[in-house]
Amino acid sequence: MNIMQNFKKIAIVGVGLIGGSIGLAIRTRRFSCKVIGIGRRKTSLDKAVQKSAIDKGTLDIQAGVMDADLIIIAAPVDQVREKIIEAAKYAKKGAIIIDVNSTKQDIVKIAESCLPKDIFFVGTHPMAGSEKSGVTSSEPGLFNDTVCIITPTRHTNKDALGKISAFWEFLGAKVKYMSAKTHDTIVARVSHLPHILSYVLCNTVSAKELAVAGSGFKDATRIAKSSSEMWEEIFLQNQKSVLKAITLYERNLRAIKSDIAKKNKQGLSEKLRTAMRKRANLD
Amino acid sequence: MNIMQNFKKIAIVGVGLIGGSIGLAIRTRRFSCKVIGIGRRKTSLDKAVQKSAIDKGTLDIQAGVMDADLIIIAAPVDQVREKIIEAAKYAKKGAIIIDVNSTKQDIVKIAESCLPKDIFFVGTHPMAGSEKSGVTSSEPGLFNDTVCIITPTRHTNKDALGKISAFWEFLGAKVKYMSAKTHDTIVARVSHLPHILSYVLCNTVSAKELAVAGSGFKDATRIAKSSSEMWEEIFLQNQKSVLKAITLYERNLRAIKSDIAKKNKQGLSEKLRTAMRKRANLD
Repeated sequence: MNIMQNFKKIAIVGVGLIGGSIGLAIRTRRFSCKVIGIGRRKTSLDKAVQKSAIDKGTLDIQAGVMDADLIIIAAPVDQVREKIIEAAKYAKKGAIIIDVNSTKQDIVKIAESCLPKDIFFVGTHPMAGSEKSGVTSSEPGLFNDTVCIITPTRHTNKDALGKISAFWEFLGAKVKYMSAKTHDTIVARVSHLPHILSYVLCNTVSAKELAVAGSGFKDATRIAKSSSEMWEEIFLQNQKSVLKAITLYERNLRAIKSDIAKKNKQGLSEKLRTAMRKRANLD
Repeated sequence: MNIMQNFKKIAIVGVGLIGGSIGLAIRTRRFSCKVIGIGRRKTSLDKAVQKSAIDKGTLDIQAGVMDADLIIIAAPVDQVREKIIEAAKYAKKGAIIIDVNSTKQDIVKIAESCLPKDIFFVGTHPMAGSEKSGVTSSEPGLFNDTVCIITPTRHTNKDALGKISAFWEFLGAKVKYMSAKTHDTIVARVSHLPHILSYVLCNTVSAKELAVAGSGFKDATRIAKSSSEMWEEIFLQNQKSVLKAITLYERNLRAIKSDIAKKNKQGLSEKLRTAMRKRANLD
């Protein structure tokens, strides 16, 4: 826990589902740093204070981040870049800035190009979330038993990297390191693709047909309840990897379609069994 | 409850997840008919008796169905046809046979062509299930707040239809009527397609990549844990409708892919919002 004592003050820029859950996870662990929330709406910040996700809220990013040891950018996807740039402007020497964005190549590049040498940046992506959004949906246990991907580069400060790894482990996550490029490829398949498939599935079934949908359909499309605004941004930010993931998926779907069309029992059976085994291993 | 008194003895042919859950649902409602389970393995039948899903089990279909008022064919997909034919051979005059199969056109056709005039058939499909299988996974509440599709034809006996509708409502389901053809089309989209998509998604992601999968991926692919043997049969039985559903899905996936490729924010946004709204209305 020593490493956590580096963070006497933590600023969370964007106190939504993820930002709020970070605040709650810190509080639940009785870690006695000060947590400041920076947001755009006073009502949301008030809710975050009421929920004990943050100690104090402010609409003024300068006031919020100025003496923070750790600045967490958990703003909406389309504002992450500008918030990193703004936070960097007001951050004190030695501060560490992290983001929690679903795409990493663009963000890491921008952060590394705009940050002064004495302010450190580490790209992180907690693989946790929910179809819900906003601080009211935040949960202290959101990161328990999840993976947090950290994407260091050759410019990443080793000391900052160590502190941030410890921070995510402290919040309950298992840390995995990979390049921003690898991250974007993998996450396109594991996270962005399932969301696309789920949205498309809802659009393939008419409202009338949905009246007979059972629990299988509901589970398979739960993530289609996620904010379309957020996901639209993510798909476009990770455009290249997302398109590749869709192409790969289309090929696999075509193969299974062909098995069904040709009544190729063996081919179909092999594909379904492989999928079933893979999925069973996930639990 | 009067209508249930028509069924003094109920035979369940195939006491797995669905057959077992029907037995449990009857028991939980304290309906005092006798429930006989017919199976292929004594161990499964013993488990069903232990769980109170059935009163008695037998490996002998003739002995099991001979004086039953209601015979429920809940056998594995590839055995439904032969079990209907067998049950019809031994059923007493006036008995009603129903199935619970995921496809209906073939089944209804076979049943109507092989059944004597004084034995009645009604095709039913409870839209309930789980990725689990076997009587050990059966639950008395499986049909609560679900839809049971009933597919009458012009040959269907009105009295039998009324009794079967009342039976499913008694078990907790909401009954919807449609033709077997409409059923197969709708169910291909609402149930068979999601299973295919889920299996294909698992096969599109490598085992290594799966290590970072979060709850979104897990939910979207829960149904890929379902028995591959069962689903292989269903996809082939409902081949025509399933292929059409896949083609429709491919078209919708291509449209969203094109929006992403062209950075067509408006098109993408409209599609995602429509999907989100549709899915939200499901809960």
